[in-house]
Amino acid sequence: MSELDPDRLFPADPGTRELARELYALVSGLPILSPHGHVDPDLIRLDQPFGDPAALLVTPDHYVTRLLHASGVPLEQLGVATEGADPREIWRAFCSHQTAFVGTASGYWLQHELGELFGIFDELSAENADSTFDLISAALARDDFRPRALFQRFGIEVLATTDDPLDDLSAHAALAADPGFAGRVLPTFRPDAYIDPAHRGFRSAAERLAEASGTSVDNYEGYLDGLAARREHFVRHGAVSADFGVRTPLTVDLPGAEAAALYKRAVRGELSFAEAEVFRGHMLLESARMSVADGLVMTLHPGVFRDHHGPTWDRFGPDTGHDIPLASEFTQNLRPLLQRFGTAPDFHLVLFTLDETTYGREIAPLAGFYPSLFVGAPWWFLDAPDSILRARAATTESAGLTRGSGFIDDTRAFLSIPARHDMARRLEASYLARLVREGRTSISTARRLVVDLIDAQPRKVFKL
Amino acid sequence: MSELDPDRLFPADPGTRELARELYALVSGLPILSPHGHVDPDLIRLDQPFGDPAALLVTPDHYVTRLLHASGVPLEQLGVATEGADPREIWRAFCSHQTAFVGTASGYWLQHELGELFGIFDELSAENADSTFDLISAALARDDFRPRALFQRFGIEVLATTDDPLDDLSAHAALAADPGFAGRVLPTFRPDAYIDPAHRGFRSAAERLAEASGTSVDNYEGYLDGLAARREHFVRHGAVSADFGVRTPLTVDLPGAEAAALYKRAVRGELSFAEAEVFRGHMLLESARMSVADGLVMTLHPGVFRDHHGPTWDRFGPDTGHDIPLASEFTQNLRPLLQRFGTAPDFHLVLFTLDETTYGREIAPLAGFYPSLFVGAPWWFLDAPDSILRARAATTESAGLTRGSGFIDDTRAFLSIPARHDMARRLEASYLARLVREGRTSISTARRLVVDLIDAQPRKVFKL
Amino acid sequence: MSELDPDRLFPADPGTRELARELYALVSGLPILSPHGHVDPDLIRLDQPFGDPAALLVTPDHYVTRLLHASGVPLEQLGVATEGADPREIWRAFCSHQTAFVGTASGYWLQHELGELFGIFDELSAENADSTFDLISAALARDDFRPRALFQRFGIEVLATTDDPLDDLSAHAALAADPGFAGRVLPTFRPDAYIDPAHRGFRSAAERLAEASGTSVDNYEGYLDGLAARREHFVRHGAVSADFGVRTPLTVDLPGAEAAALYKRAVRGELSFAEAEVFRGHMLLESARMSVADGLVMTLHPGVFRDHHGPTWDRFGPDTGHDIPLASEFTQNLRPLLQRFGTAPDFHLVLFTLDETTYGREIAPLAGFYPSLFVGAPWWFLDAPDSILRARAATTESAGLTRGSGFIDDTRAFLSIPARHDMARRLEASYLARLVREGRTSISTARRLVVDLIDAQPRKVFKL
Repeated sequence: MSELDPDRLFPADPGTRELARELYALVSGLPILSPHGHVDPDLIRLDQPFGDPAALLVTPDHYVTRLLHASGVPLEQLGVATEGADPREIWRAFCSHQTAFVGTASGYWLQHELGELFGIFDELSAENADSTFDLISAALARDDFRPRALFQRFGIEVLATTDDPLDDLSAHAALAADPGFAGRVLPTFRPDAYIDPAHRGFRSAAERLAEASGTSVDNYEGYLDGLAARREHFVRHGAVSADFGVRTPLTVDLPGAEAAALYKRAVRGELSFAEAEVFRGHMLLESARMSVADGLVMTLHPGVFRDHHGPTWDRFGPDTGHDIPLASEFTQNLRPLLQRFGTAPDFHLVLFTLDETTYGREIAPLAGFYPSLFVGAPWWFLDAPDSILRARAATTESAGLTRGSGFIDDTRAFLSIPARHDMARRLEASYLARLVREGRTSISTARRLVVDLIDAQPRKVFKL
Repeated sequence: MSELDPDRLFPADPGTRELARELYALVSGLPILSPHGHVDPDLIRLDQPFGDPAALLVTPDHYVTRLLHASGVPLEQLGVATEGADPREIWRAFCSHQTAFVGTASGYWLQHELGELFGIFDELSAENADSTFDLISAALARDDFRPRALFQRFGIEVLATTDDPLDDLSAHAALAADPGFAGRVLPTFRPDAYIDPAHRGFRSAAERLAEASGTSVDNYEGYLDGLAARREHFVRHGAVSADFGVRTPLTVDLPGAEAAALYKRAVRGELSFAEAEVFRGHMLLESARMSVADGLVMTLHPGVFRDHHGPTWDRFGPDTGHDIPLASEFTQNLRPLLQRFGTAPDFHLVLFTLDETTYGREIAPLAGFYPSLFVGAPWWFLDAPDSILRARAATTESAGLTRGSGFIDDTRAFLSIPARHDMARRLEASYLARLVREGRTSISTARRLVVDLIDAQPRKVFKL
Repeated sequence: MSELDPDRLFPADPGTRELARELYALVSGLPILSPHGHVDPDLIRLDQPFGDPAALLVTPDHYVTRLLHASGVPLEQLGVATEGADPREIWRAFCSHQTAFVGTASGYWLQHELGELFGIFDELSAENADSTFDLISAALARDDFRPRALFQRFGIEVLATTDDPLDDLSAHAALAADPGFAGRVLPTFRPDAYIDPAHRGFRSAAERLAEASGTSVDNYEGYLDGLAARREHFVRHGAVSADFGVRTPLTVDLPGAEAAALYKRAVRGELSFAEAEVFRGHMLLESARMSVADGLVMTLHPGVFRDHHGPTWDRFGPDTGHDIPLASEFTQNLRPLLQRFGTAPDFHLVLFTLDETTYGREIAPLAGFYPSLFVGAPWWFLDAPDSILRARAATTESAGLTRGSGFIDDTRAFLSIPARHDMARRLEASYLARLVREGRTSISTARRLVVDLIDAQPRKVFKL
């Protein structure tokens, strides 16, 4: 190949493909809006050259290292939580296991990145490992491959990061104040450790929050005030959303006194697993209440068993590829929260899932009634071509096309951002092309909608 | 557009599309059999002109009002449980939110209805709201738009309604006795309030039943006899089925004495939630026993959390768009009933689901063994093009094509009946066309089967 | 028809179909590897002529008899567990209910078998029942239709059977020692009754095992040693795997003393249902430990409610078509086992499921991290064209193409083996053709991968 297939991901039928091409052309050049992700803001602030190809594309990307691990490459050989691994050796291991990535989302993004950024159109292999390592390394040394130059080349308008509630957000402030940088880099309030007594870091988080708030750690009112104050700090720095990663989306509407009593026992580490769940469910409801007050969009990412393999966690820490999805339930779990805030003016709740059975069964019917509730874009294991089209098909017939969050890349892999957004645009175009070809909507409506889906919808849902 | 797309819903591939066209042509003109729905029999009996476009197409259709509500239009502005809303204003609100319906089943049906009935082929919009309101209003004033004229124009042969067990069925009797009306309008026995102690209306239903049966409300035998007597009343008025809307399909085989004791406490409102479930499960089994005796087809519609948003229910009542599906389980829940009646001669049990994971996993394997059990057509949120084809694909490979119920429109929107049946016919044709194109069956078999699926199968399953 | 459609199961789009044809041609002639199935080894050893068409294609195949039963044909009329049924009458019943099989996997296989083996290309029907009965009967009398001749004609290289742990494996030994037979017929260790205290045969199995091991039945260590010794016996006879059919994949890591105490009570029949589950879960973990020691691949087939209809089981026994799937859960249930052995060198665990929601949600993410874990081919109710493609789409995007088990026919219907493997090859070709057509991989990679998937992958996973 000497170029990427210009028709990639479009439907096979030539008539439908032609329609998809036309619709894609309307959105392929639109600016990138990334309202939820995990890029380090210092990457942009400091604007240092990227390291070597392995440090850029392999070691930090747990989507990639997990499949190499499954293929028999130990994580230490990939430099995960390990000093002194040779980048060239890591790259060779990656290149010689490319077959593992055929058909995966990661493989698809990589193909896009290598082609668009580095002009590499051949598939990686043991044979071209050294030459591609050298070629990429040379590119990375150039000024036009520094983060800010790429930020601009990628057409990113908004990039949200994910941040600890006690982060001072100085990186975001510096970027906002920098006259030489035109992009918007927004923080996101992510309080998992602060609201979940089952989280390893809960006690420490509660202590640091109390200290920052000038209150005692066992003061429940002070704890709530402290969280609200930190949210205000985020709002002042441009945050548009607060994000919650929880095992289940259980919400609980506890009387204040009961919540306070649980909290006091929580900071002493006295809660059972079930009590911790109840308190966390209560704090989700309290967080919704805060969102109603301060306007932060609430995003909910439930349904993951984190750190599934204990020995790997012991040795390599979190986010090393063994977070495994669980079946989820929204209809009953979210009811307490929705009873209270499901029709609250200007409250936005975005539901993500890794259990795709919930798209059609629960999330779309909920989003088809509650004005506050939006269908989150397919996430993580589901952020891939077939999965995205399945989610479209599963949600649209009952919730329509206007109740979605817009695409979210959720990535810590900065270079993959354009690949991911381009993938989403191709798939929206493909889906709408099918509706037109099946006589379910007109091409004029599809033309209008494809732009709305890529541009207007995320601006509206995330209040950008 | 000046006409509906004649190829709508057919597969994109030209070869397959050609086959679908041929198969569809064999069934497009067949009479409509509607063995389960919610049209008011008085609509046909009285044959009054329909009201205005809003009262016809918006206000009473919770498929439509829910999406408008999600889009920010309050239900009172749509005239839901609200006096004095201006129909023209409701219509304007509907027209200016048409984007919300793109890709939905409701949007698809509306397009069919507007085109076929009113010659409106442009998409509704704020701009044409007044002109379409006037055009539809003018049509509705004509005699050929009265219910009976449409009943005939639609080619409806059988239309089943859904009725309270104590309904005197005088509307059905009047229609049957009317020499000027050739259609069959059949009642359906729907005893939810009478068998579920958790139902808001249980106590009152049990009292009215006891009064009608001349027995005491706490007499369990009288209660069973009363239900059987009302079923007989329905059978005498042409009913072919009894329908059960329950949260779960749990069935329980209780000893009589235990059931009687639960019943006595149920009418006193003393059952726990779990005990109420057990009693309801027992009454499903008892209802199957009655079906074996009186021949009424048993249809089961489980898996919905009704009235999810309390404040909306308080203000607007039931059926206002916030009934949300739940995960369901059939394999274990139905076993007590199937142990008893799964092979009972002439017993028919039709299973509906809103949890599409159960189609392939549970319902098709059950229907592939038990002669009494039929796969219900995709229902409610799943009564839509992609969902229907998914259900076909999920059930056919293990249960074949002859174990389905035939299409059921389940609608209270009279004007949408032809649109819905036409959609189902197009999809059966599309599915069979794909089987032929993939070399999985012959075109001659497909020709025979498509007619069977649309016509013979519902006649057989519902004993029409 | 005068031949089978050479393009059957290929995608409809002509461009994609052309690619599928090319890829299929690369694998259509490869030898058949069947690492898991239920053919009786004596069938091959004795090499007797097959009986009549009914005894060959109807009576013993519960995929077939269940659908006939659902269609109203009593099992006794099909000769199931019934002496003296007339084969010709059974065949007539089968032929006159062919419509029940349209669109099913069984119907597809039958079409292949009749065409390829007997030159019957017309669909079976009441009209041709007698002539096809005679035609097939005549063929079966010929020497080239004996089992060994067909084994060779089918191109079977490896055929695994499923065997009781106390089987002496003399049939396998005889075949291995026979210079006139070149195929490999391997036993598979299947200890369900030996490890599940809820199994009807548990007590008897434990007693026979103790007797064979020269130990007392309530000696837990002797029980474990006995199982390990029987596994060694299987390994010596060429076994490559141990197979576990369980209701749930729960695994439990019990301290030895606790396990011993449960075992003692288990052989006395004293365990509650829940305790029996725990012991079985513990024995799955112990079995994994044994696999780490002796190298047998562990295959897990969970999620079936066996013998759903009691009256049918009472009359006709097990495997008579009323085993019904259940929802399954792997993420939490398998964690104890994977904590211990998920990264153990050379340990292979193959996960099958009948709950296809687990493919994408749980099995693929697990197989995308744990090197020991492989995605089992779609099994039983899911071993069918659309289901297989759904499983491919659900697993590939997160686990890639290299984490699967390779195709497994799992059949007791010897004649259907080529049809099933051919189906799998057509579908792999179709899936890869789609990836190429959508620009997601190159044709050269697809050419290489299709051969790997059919040939190299099962050899690797099953250590053939």
